[in-house]
Amino acid sequence: MTALGHHLLVEFAGCDAGSLADLEQVTSAMLRAAEASGATVITHSFHHFSPHGVSGAVIVAESHLAIHTWPEHGFAAVDFFSCGAVDMDRAMVLLQEAFRATSESRLELERGPLRKLLA
Amino acid sequence: MTALGHHLLVEFAGCDAGSLADLEQVTSAMLRAAEASGATVITHSFHHFSPHGVSGAVIVAESHLAIHTWPEHGFAAVDFFSCGAVDMDRAMVLLQEAFRATSESRLELERGPLRKLLA
Repeated sequence: MTALGHHLLVEFAGCDAGSLADLEQVTSAMLRAAEASGATVITHSFHHFSPHGVSGAVIVAESHLAIHTWPEHGFAAVDFFSCGAVDMDRAMVLLQEAFRATSESRLELERGPLRKLLA
Repeated sequence: MTALGHHLLVEFAGCDAGSLADLEQVTSAMLRAAEASGATVITHSFHHFSPHGVSGAVIVAESHLAIHTWPEHGFAAVDFFSCGAVDMDRAMVLLQEAFRATSESRLELERGPLRKLLA
């Protein structure tokens, strides 16, 4: 272990606008993604905002999986923060398929690097 | 506007362990921070995890403010995602004071850069 947490930021582009605008579809995909990662879901909160787009998060044990979508741009920003052994890649594959994203970019960050905290 | 959203990741170190371990104190500080930023709070979810530490998020309109704390390391990882005009700095000052952090590091990211999406 080199850090207390890992934070994976993913941007999905070229997505299906209808899926990104649909509160139920986004909520369902995010819950399935959290479960597919092996995380323990505690609660979730998603809402629609005007004029379109869905925003929300799944709170999982010791971490979170959040999303914000812009259907008008076919774009979704996702972030998965984890302090335990979860398969974040599996969650992202599921979301990419659910939104039919044609491209994605990723940034993985260490949060709380132990080389600094224990120095 | 150069991007759809802005994501500010802040790490607080040298914090007061007692504050970081206290579910009520963390929840209260996070709600006050969200309100101080001018964001509209929709809901929140915080929980204690074993052996210690608090994890959770405030869902605000079009964005989220999340935290994970490690009292044993005097460390908290915070992230504020915003798609609107909120004062994220003000929120972070409030959290720094609440946890009595002696140092902090920040990373601010553009999410959904328009130069790419509109290209």
